[in-house]
Amino acid sequence: MMVLMQPGAKPAQIQEVIDTISSHNMRPLKLPGDEQTAIGIASAIPPELRESLTAQLRSLPGVEHVVQISRPFKLASREFWKQDTVVSVKGVEIGGPKCVVMAGPCSVENREQIFMAAEAVKNCGAAVLRGGAYKPRTSPYSFQGLGLEGLRLMKEVGDNLQIATVSEVMAPEDVELVAEHVDILQIGARNMQNYALLIAVGKAGHPTLLKRGPGASIDEFLLAAEYLLHHGTKDVILCERGVYPLDKTYTRNTLDLNAVPVLKHLSHLPVLVDPSHGTGMARYVPAMSRAALAAGADGLILEVHPDPKHALSDGQQSLNPEQFQCLMDSLKGIAAASGRSL
Amino acid sequence: MMVLMQPGAKPAQIQEVIDTISSHNMRPLKLPGDEQTAIGIASAIPPELRESLTAQLRSLPGVEHVVQISRPFKLASREFWKQDTVVSVKGVEIGGPKCVVMAGPCSVENREQIFMAAEAVKNCGAAVLRGGAYKPRTSPYSFQGLGLEGLRLMKEVGDNLQIATVSEVMAPEDVELVAEHVDILQIGARNMQNYALLIAVGKAGHPTLLKRGPGASIDEFLLAAEYLLHHGTKDVILCERGVYPLDKTYTRNTLDLNAVPVLKHLSHLPVLVDPSHGTGMARYVPAMSRAALAAGADGLILEVHPDPKHALSDGQQSLNPEQFQCLMDSLKGIAAASGRSL
Amino acid sequence: MMVLMQPGAKPAQIQEVIDTISSHNMRPLKLPGDEQTAIGIASAIPPELRESLTAQLRSLPGVEHVVQISRPFKLASREFWKQDTVVSVKGVEIGGPKCVVMAGPCSVENREQIFMAAEAVKNCGAAVLRGGAYKPRTSPYSFQGLGLEGLRLMKEVGDNLQIATVSEVMAPEDVELVAEHVDILQIGARNMQNYALLIAVGKAGHPTLLKRGPGASIDEFLLAAEYLLHHGTKDVILCERGVYPLDKTYTRNTLDLNAVPVLKHLSHLPVLVDPSHGTGMARYVPAMSRAALAAGADGLILEVHPDPKHALSDGQQSLNPEQFQCLMDSLKGIAAASGRSL
Amino acid sequence: MMVLMQPGAKPAQIQEVIDTISSHNMRPLKLPGDEQTAIGIASAIPPELRESLTAQLRSLPGVEHVVQISRPFKLASREFWKQDTVVSVKGVEIGGPKCVVMAGPCSVENREQIFMAAEAVKNCGAAVLRGGAYKPRTSPYSFQGLGLEGLRLMKEVGDNLQIATVSEVMAPEDVELVAEHVDILQIGARNMQNYALLIAVGKAGHPTLLKRGPGASIDEFLLAAEYLLHHGTKDVILCERGVYPLDKTYTRNTLDLNAVPVLKHLSHLPVLVDPSHGTGMARYVPAMSRAALAAGADGLILEVHPDPKHALSDGQQSLNPEQFQCLMDSLKGIAAASGRSL
Repeated sequence: MMVLMQPGAKPAQIQEVIDTISSHNMRPLKLPGDEQTAIGIASAIPPELRESLTAQLRSLPGVEHVVQISRPFKLASREFWKQDTVVSVKGVEIGGPKCVVMAGPCSVENREQIFMAAEAVKNCGAAVLRGGAYKPRTSPYSFQGLGLEGLRLMKEVGDNLQIATVSEVMAPEDVELVAEHVDILQIGARNMQNYALLIAVGKAGHPTLLKRGPGASIDEFLLAAEYLLHHGTKDVILCERGVYPLDKTYTRNTLDLNAVPVLKHLSHLPVLVDPSHGTGMARYVPAMSRAALAAGADGLILEVHPDPKHALSDGQQSLNPEQFQCLMDSLKGIAAASGRSL
Repeated sequence: MMVLMQPGAKPAQIQEVIDTISSHNMRPLKLPGDEQTAIGIASAIPPELRESLTAQLRSLPGVEHVVQISRPFKLASREFWKQDTVVSVKGVEIGGPKCVVMAGPCSVENREQIFMAAEAVKNCGAAVLRGGAYKPRTSPYSFQGLGLEGLRLMKEVGDNLQIATVSEVMAPEDVELVAEHVDILQIGARNMQNYALLIAVGKAGHPTLLKRGPGASIDEFLLAAEYLLHHGTKDVILCERGVYPLDKTYTRNTLDLNAVPVLKHLSHLPVLVDPSHGTGMARYVPAMSRAALAAGADGLILEVHPDPKHALSDGQQSLNPEQFQCLMDSLKGIAAASGRSL
Repeated sequence: MMVLMQPGAKPAQIQEVIDTISSHNMRPLKLPGDEQTAIGIASAIPPELRESLTAQLRSLPGVEHVVQISRPFKLASREFWKQDTVVSVKGVEIGGPKCVVMAGPCSVENREQIFMAAEAVKNCGAAVLRGGAYKPRTSPYSFQGLGLEGLRLMKEVGDNLQIATVSEVMAPEDVELVAEHVDILQIGARNMQNYALLIAVGKAGHPTLLKRGPGASIDEFLLAAEYLLHHGTKDVILCERGVYPLDKTYTRNTLDLNAVPVLKHLSHLPVLVDPSHGTGMARYVPAMSRAALAAGADGLILEVHPDPKHALSDGQQSLNPEQFQCLMDSLKGIAAASGRSL
Repeated sequence: MMVLMQPGAKPAQIQEVIDTISSHNMRPLKLPGDEQTAIGIASAIPPELRESLTAQLRSLPGVEHVVQISRPFKLASREFWKQDTVVSVKGVEIGGPKCVVMAGPCSVENREQIFMAAEAVKNCGAAVLRGGAYKPRTSPYSFQGLGLEGLRLMKEVGDNLQIATVSEVMAPEDVELVAEHVDILQIGARNMQNYALLIAVGKAGHPTLLKRGPGASIDEFLLAAEYLLHHGTKDVILCERGVYPLDKTYTRNTLDLNAVPVLKHLSHLPVLVDPSHGTGMARYVPAMSRAALAAGADGLILEVHPDPKHALSDGQQSLNPEQFQCLMDSLKGIAAASGRSL
């Protein structure tokens, strides 16, 4: 951390900053400049002190900026854990040499739909079935998901077809129930900073797919992962799903593929990409799926519906099984050219 | 709603759109253009159909756009309820002719601190005491609030000093407990789309301050209010607290004061502004507090701490009691020049 | 400036950073941390070296971040010039105790229109007439302004009615011509980083109104002002006119009023606000005009058209003369409550 | 275009909208809804009328929204020109089956540097040499380029090594000069809405690389291309180079690869991607170059410097020749897996 004083800060103000740092048993280092003085902290700052110390220093008279110079996350960092984390679920390895595709409908709608979807995606090579039972919806008047009935269908289809499953959990009190029915818990983008949920899911210790919030910085995203890791989950899968777009005319979000190499550089956790939400239009999903793997993603999560026209949610961004087959075929070459398999 | 076909869409594709609209017992209206055909829906669309119909139409072949032309919220709209809603809490009227100031520390830290803060803000003219017991924190290593102990202190200070109180609730299972201890529930910005929480708070029927998410559009904000209203709360107070900034060099957020006249135009609900989070710097809070009232806000929520330097959270954006007194004095003229009192 | 090394950076990499700093005759200061080493520069960095040195340090192996800790602008800063700059034009003082209102149509359309507009705004108390002769338009098919004919009308109306005038210049080769016809040159938001234009306008030495680009950070805005000041103009007026909005449903831009106190804190230059572009809707202009003055702006620039319905550009955000009169009346109280006059 | 009336709009207000549309010889179509009435325009709207008509309708009493439902660009659209445009420059085909790589230093610094760079990138397979003579710089104190001397060096190296060249033009008066020295004119991101420049470059009729502004929507980008096409240039190459990032901690921009399939869908013009500016960090350039080709880009423009550490600009995002060779090798497989060659 470094504290930059305002031009013209008085010696007593500079001394107060130095004393404040010393009072926490850290070593202040004064850097006199021609116009402004800076004071660096030449000691490691305990993570639990970082935020309050920053605020305390910022509130001192004569202080202009407090600059963070080390990363705020620990357990999620590559410095903490050098090798790539591989999350194993029902024989599927996420983060290993093989790219993993998770696919299925936005919402579980009924037994026939989810079984048709599951068979279709499994036949095309998907390793994990996605399907929502609890749905976060912008409007209270939209379809909110089948709830427990949806979870039961996910469990039934996962057991019958021997396919791993992932489904979203929206409330702390549902964590146990969802964990009993699916293999991977999903935390949705709009809940990425729902700390009560992060703590409850972290404590459950179940493999968890964490979606990046559409306005979240990389540090905020990795701090959300840090909550999960800190509270007990080891198997965290990161998922980029698009950030707030400049312009919603043609796509629903801006898929931030820069985040893929950045996250792989900073963290040991596997990184998936969701081009369905990241574009919001089925037409653009194949191009962005290929781009995601070429950028180094460990896999994809895709919306595939047996009949997108009659989907109860997200129909416009769902592929039908034929489109999905076609995409899976085209991804093989990209995976190979990226030193991976599919 | 209006469906715009792609240039060169085939007659059978146009017909499928028309048939889809008719199948829901709504009246399609064809608008032939020279290059592109549009199909309008000349009937009211039931809110519960709006989202799925949009998705269904978007997924049809030959469709380019589906344009929403009516507002997605109902109960929160001025069409539904013409007069301004006034929320009454412990004798304080929020949304009436008098501007209301809520003030207090970010977090309840201990009995002495909250009593000192409460006395100071009450003496300066604040009508409601704010103080957090459950704190959403970006890092798992930051101070997370006193929890139940903090709630008890809020109740004690509210009862002793006869001042209304507001505090944040973060999890559905805490709603009842928080509602027993404070007069107004707060839903924080990062939980604005935490639907499990919105439903639980809505059912509690307690007065609720809803903060706008930093990336939320006006429609998304009013739809979050719609969740509360739909599930049973009548007394919803909207609060603008800053949106994602272009640039974090000098302020933490961009306070979106445009939202004040927009929300007053669209909705009957009272609108507060939080310049403490909206700027993130105590230095800029007075100017933006004055601006908020001049823009037509029904009041302010401000961070005031007896000793900002030693605050456990948000010290850099908290006013001390002298600064707060000074600000309250300067607000009187602005309120008067805006046809209000303070 | 401070250089943060990656965790695990080698001693030779740290030494290379130190040597690089020393080779520019600046004093490096090593701050050893437990995990990461930082190297501060304890000398003033000449502005012309700042950018290339940053890039050079960033490209060295083992370097993680290079953090800027001093401000990149000089002449525009309050440290350089302590008092408020007051720009005097035809007897109007911009930046002094009296708030200044500039008003008029988006485009000069014909003699009758600009004379009617000028009389109307002058009668209501505007001190400066605005009117565009060269119009930057998103589409090549939109009305592009009257050009020289528009400039001549601005000069005629300014002379006849004895009112100061402002008009936009879009190309370096037009600077001289525009400066001969109007009192204040305007650089539009989309040209804020058109450096060829900034240099040409700077050399002209004419009073200049510089609009903030809709995506420009505060530093970028003040660096654009720095171009003008560095090349010879002393009389620079800053103008906040809205930044890219999260959501264009209800307003065209997000008016960033935080920028007002921030700019007044950092710079000695006068700060105006343009609520017409900042909202894009006449309905919201009065509220935001009041808010701008309450935030501390030195004045406003507003679109007023004698007949907004038939305006050739920006009709939806223009006030008619009655609305403008009404707004001017209501601004007097706000100015007075802010310690200013109007 | 469609006009949505406010709930409760009066019959006379609705009639005024209908009459306004009719007065322009277009056919209004009334769509009565239960709460709100909409009026569609069932005729093609001449492009020169589009903007003023929109503004006129928006300013009428009782109007809530005016919704654009057709695209604002014509010559740039795929409807206007069905086949892919292929731009041929000195034997290089941009937009054809072969992906094209443009590479070279940010700035021309001296003869030795540009010759070394040109030889290096040519040997690695780049088809076009980039090199800036006029540099748009945020600070007036930064290196501004060699100007005419830089252009002469570009011409000399292009002639000697028989490689096509591209360089930025910043001012209308320089267009002719730059066009005499290089094969492709570049319009930089910050000048994307510099209309005086777009018109001058359009009239020159020279092949032009148009970079997307960091805040530009897709429509604004294609309208800038429309300016070029409308004023006479046929050979326009679009270039995505990153949009304003949520967060600048780890990358300088957010590379918007969604734009690649969107632009290929909407327009016949070739689309390049600039991962050097799109990430701002050499470390992330290879991953994003691969992703760009996998997303369907027609090529790349990359910063390559013989000695990035001593570059006068953009050193931190430049590859050295070895890194560039390595990247070119890895791109071959991606191009092949995308049905292209390199």
